[in-house]
Amino acid sequence: MQSVRLHEVALRDGLQNEAKVLSVAQKRSILDSLIAAGFRDIEVTSFVRPRMIPQLSDASEMVAALPQVEGVRFWALVPNQVGLERSLDAGVQNIATFMSSSETHNKKNVNRTIVESLASLEAVTRTAVAHGQRVRAYISTVFGCPYEGDVDPASTLRIARALLDAGASELSLGDTTGVANPLQVQSVLRYLEAEGIPMDVIAAHFHDTRGTALANVLAAWQCGVRVFDGAVAGVGGCPYAPGAAGNVGSEDLVNLFEQMGVETGVSLEGACHAGQVVETHLGRPLPSRYHQFWQTSQQAEDTLLEAKGA
Amino acid sequence: MQSVRLHEVALRDGLQNEAKVLSVAQKRSILDSLIAAGFRDIEVTSFVRPRMIPQLSDASEMVAALPQVEGVRFWALVPNQVGLERSLDAGVQNIATFMSSSETHNKKNVNRTIVESLASLEAVTRTAVAHGQRVRAYISTVFGCPYEGDVDPASTLRIARALLDAGASELSLGDTTGVANPLQVQSVLRYLEAEGIPMDVIAAHFHDTRGTALANVLAAWQCGVRVFDGAVAGVGGCPYAPGAAGNVGSEDLVNLFEQMGVETGVSLEGACHAGQVVETHLGRPLPSRYHQFWQTSQQAEDTLLEAKGA
Repeated sequence: MQSVRLHEVALRDGLQNEAKVLSVAQKRSILDSLIAAGFRDIEVTSFVRPRMIPQLSDASEMVAALPQVEGVRFWALVPNQVGLERSLDAGVQNIATFMSSSETHNKKNVNRTIVESLASLEAVTRTAVAHGQRVRAYISTVFGCPYEGDVDPASTLRIARALLDAGASELSLGDTTGVANPLQVQSVLRYLEAEGIPMDVIAAHFHDTRGTALANVLAAWQCGVRVFDGAVAGVGGCPYAPGAAGNVGSEDLVNLFEQMGVETGVSLEGACHAGQVVETHLGRPLPSRYHQFWQTSQQAEDTLLEAKGA
Repeated sequence: MQSVRLHEVALRDGLQNEAKVLSVAQKRSILDSLIAAGFRDIEVTSFVRPRMIPQLSDASEMVAALPQVEGVRFWALVPNQVGLERSLDAGVQNIATFMSSSETHNKKNVNRTIVESLASLEAVTRTAVAHGQRVRAYISTVFGCPYEGDVDPASTLRIARALLDAGASELSLGDTTGVANPLQVQSVLRYLEAEGIPMDVIAAHFHDTRGTALANVLAAWQCGVRVFDGAVAGVGGCPYAPGAAGNVGSEDLVNLFEQMGVETGVSLEGACHAGQVVETHLGRPLPSRYHQFWQTSQQAEDTLLEAKGA
């Protein structure tokens, strides 16, 4: 049986974009529901400067409170050397670095050129690996940049090669603003593969801003990608734009793959339940399509049960 | 340049599932916006018994009021010989018949066995073609049935062959309840093609109930399907289930294909505007993902303009 691995980012990429700041206890209840659903790679927080992202300023506390679960890896985002040291102090075993393929986006996001970011993250990666950490590298705006438009795949390739050489074990290619299309996804992936980047180090990170995430997931899967990032309930859209969708829903990924006979190791019902926990804590309707379908089905069942009871 | 043809069903498949009944004038304003957007195949109404679907009981009036537009084909749904005669009286040039691949769904939907429906629709098709009408045949529940579960593709093949032999020029394969997955779509299409059904008579009709419509569209396109059904704003979900999505949004189709460099002949902005007209008339938020993205973008632009004006 074929399988894929899902990387859950609701607690990090999801919550960092939300107006409401959750407590550690609330985050733990989300984490527990994610573990119960069967997620085995869960990104729990970020060691960026606490002032920058107050939603995740409790990173050390979150990490200290992590349970030990056989087979589950917890990940934390690390922006630079300072973040790395905080993550090492906290005892984090798996870190994720991030930078952009687009010069302008990278500059706006971390106030560095690509060359500067790359030098810094190569050093971070080497140090992390030397300390026994596993390193995932996010490369964002791979399929398009809100400032520059088209992004040269050669930029992605240079970053990919350098970070793999430095010791990263996984590259997560991000469609940061949801502009990718399936033919482009396949074209970029085939280019990277032809240039020597093996598909088994690639993860695909799609946002569902325009509803195209699952089509892009399918396209990436057809090219041999077997790791997919998602966030339950699709959390992570901009809270100031009510209709804007964020990360592709983990439920959507689980449903698509399980329907295709591809194992995810995650229970669809469990993922839906975890999405409901996130939505309850945030107190706003979340956009994942399967999440919405599941809620509607639940309501219909409740109505039926009430009718039977009456 | 590659191209696909979109078949717009908002006025028929969309409105027939809505609680609110629109006036002929409201429907005409939708139709005008669809024509302005560049849709060239527009299903405008249904000649089922008016009592069955009050939303479309003004079929003859709608047809009488149709404009003459170079290159635009208007379609009407016809259930049987009586509906066919009404459509001929009304001067309809393009009709669509419908039946299910699943015995139980067909029985529940039209109170006939598949054998009975097929005999009736073969006769309807022959008569229609003899009168110079073009005939499209909907085959529903091709990818799964809410009553039976799996549906044997051999049933779809038998219906497809019989209706093509009778003179149908297009077969629209329907995922009536949104349960199809991309691998299944490809497996069914390849089976039909291997059995002699050419892909250039196939249209794909996906519902986005579980968010998988565009992935299924991509899968069908990869198999050579070049006609896709959609409804602007994704109208057509059950009005009693708020989160339930209906037809795949025509905007979603236009965006996906145009992003892939595949021509649709339809303006994305125009399709979004038409979706807005439908939503305004129905007075409820509609589910197409691109429709929601476009609305959010519009709101953001309005806010920006207001801020600049202040």
